[in-house]
Amino acid sequence: MLVADIDTPALLIDAVALEENLATMAAALPGTRLRPHVKAHKCTALARRQAAAGHRSFTCATIRECEGMAAAGLGEDLLLANEVLDTRRLGNLVAAGARVTVAVDSAETIQAAVAGGVREVLIDVNVGLPRCGCSVQDAGRLADLARGHGLEVRGVMGYEGHVVGLPDAADRAQKCKVAMEMLLAAHADVGGELVSAGGTGTYAINTWANEIQAGSYALMDTAYGRLGLPFRQAAFVLTTVVSRSDGWAVGNAGLKAFGMDHGNPQLADGTVMFCSDEHVTFAPPRAVGELAWLAPAHIDPTMSCHERAYLFSGDTVVDIWPIDLRGW
Amino acid sequence: MLVADIDTPALLIDAVALEENLATMAAALPGTRLRPHVKAHKCTALARRQAAAGHRSFTCATIRECEGMAAAGLGEDLLLANEVLDTRRLGNLVAAGARVTVAVDSAETIQAAVAGGVREVLIDVNVGLPRCGCSVQDAGRLADLARGHGLEVRGVMGYEGHVVGLPDAADRAQKCKVAMEMLLAAHADVGGELVSAGGTGTYAINTWANEIQAGSYALMDTAYGRLGLPFRQAAFVLTTVVSRSDGWAVGNAGLKAFGMDHGNPQLADGTVMFCSDEHVTFAPPRAVGELAWLAPAHIDPTMSCHERAYLFSGDTVVDIWPIDLRGW
Repeated sequence: MLVADIDTPALLIDAVALEENLATMAAALPGTRLRPHVKAHKCTALARRQAAAGHRSFTCATIRECEGMAAAGLGEDLLLANEVLDTRRLGNLVAAGARVTVAVDSAETIQAAVAGGVREVLIDVNVGLPRCGCSVQDAGRLADLARGHGLEVRGVMGYEGHVVGLPDAADRAQKCKVAMEMLLAAHADVGGELVSAGGTGTYAINTWANEIQAGSYALMDTAYGRLGLPFRQAAFVLTTVVSRSDGWAVGNAGLKAFGMDHGNPQLADGTVMFCSDEHVTFAPPRAVGELAWLAPAHIDPTMSCHERAYLFSGDTVVDIWPIDLRGW
Repeated sequence: MLVADIDTPALLIDAVALEENLATMAAALPGTRLRPHVKAHKCTALARRQAAAGHRSFTCATIRECEGMAAAGLGEDLLLANEVLDTRRLGNLVAAGARVTVAVDSAETIQAAVAGGVREVLIDVNVGLPRCGCSVQDAGRLADLARGHGLEVRGVMGYEGHVVGLPDAADRAQKCKVAMEMLLAAHADVGGELVSAGGTGTYAINTWANEIQAGSYALMDTAYGRLGLPFRQAAFVLTTVVSRSDGWAVGNAGLKAFGMDHGNPQLADGTVMFCSDEHVTFAPPRAVGELAWLAPAHIDPTMSCHERAYLFSGDTVVDIWPIDLRGW
């Protein structure tokens, strides 16, 4: 099958760029130094390529992602880096032989882990992003509470999500250090072998965590593309021009094909004017029937818009991967 | 099943609000005066409620929507209000007995309709939104071209998408009039029984079109909610608080559960601070385990994030509807 024969709109992955990105990361953070975050692609076929690159431990954001990874035979060491109360489904995975560690940041989430049959936890510490995680001062108490309930506390996690996208590299490095000093202070009280943190924007500068939860590096997006990282854009939405006017052309993909929280997708050789539900209007105009390739502004919510990804090399489709970890 | 037993995050539809919205619209625009746009809900079960309210003709934005509607027995009069080049799948629907009319705005799209086996078209006219549609001056020529190829030209369509969301009602009415005068000028050259236009924001003031393509009115969103229309919010994303800090709480739904192009979802009794992939951070804080109901800013791309909708009345789930028209 040729790229030109794909029904549009469609999500395409440049197989060469993907493998280069995976190899670059595996060289920088080999084996368990990287715990790839599957929320960035939601695709077990892609996770299998990450496993082939040497990574056997994975990060998940949802219960559904844990279930899909375990079903795909990739459940050797799954971290659900998120607080959950309905842990029954996770307990089922543990009972079936998967290793599932869940983040906890409160008495309620510890109690839920116990009730659901999860045996291992990380203490999630707030290191500056106004989201989940306990205070540094509370981490030791929660670890004691978890151990008192018979849970294995494997260590701490703390996501510096307020830092990973900062445009200035020196600023990013300085604020990463501040965040990770908080995490290490919590770790001193908690113990355990894992200090889990980081993302694509800090993978090379976060030298405090002993495993990095990066995910976007594999496929990339235009937001991370501005940071000067050694990864290149590997995911695109392929559209067909269906209408042309004097000042613009219209491609057949829009708000339902792109995560839009970071803004419009980008066209290599044109300017996106705006997106509607099923359209992208861009300039300059080009002929009806031509293809237009768009790079997403934010890869994670873009992947979850699509049922499948077409892996291509040159003008040929080399594989079709289900985006099988969508939903909850 | 009770609402409290639903696994979160989940899309919920208030059955009473939905039926009220449907009844209000059916009273204003009975029967074929409304051609409900299914892109706003992507759900054949909801379309069946619209059919029960008296509407038997529907508007679609994608080939997949046409296929799903025909498969659900709702293919009596489908308008694909969009330009498409790959019309083979539409031709298959026509051959199987569905009535499918497709929008055309160029020689290429007319040729595609002929090649794919579609027999009926509307001439799509640009009435001011920089998107699809031919110029008013070109509409007659395209109609002649289509008829010369043996196509039935049912009339014109022209979507005043630059008008439907204008906050000032008088401004909205004035600009709607300008747009529809353009459409009527084109219709004078094209002929045919249909003058198709409009949306939820102009359904009551667009007196020039003889059918209105509104869709959002059924479930609503916070953007249309600001226009003072007689429809109320019927769709919500239900989240569970999974983490609480001194200044905020975190619900378990984020960028993958909401269309974000119109901004953050809204909480009735709090303020959303920001969304991450699977989280919504909001203030003031509330207890871990509490539910939080969020109204989407834009209903169309929110619906396409979800596999199913839970229809509820009071505290009881009365039905579960697949969102079965997603994808392409």
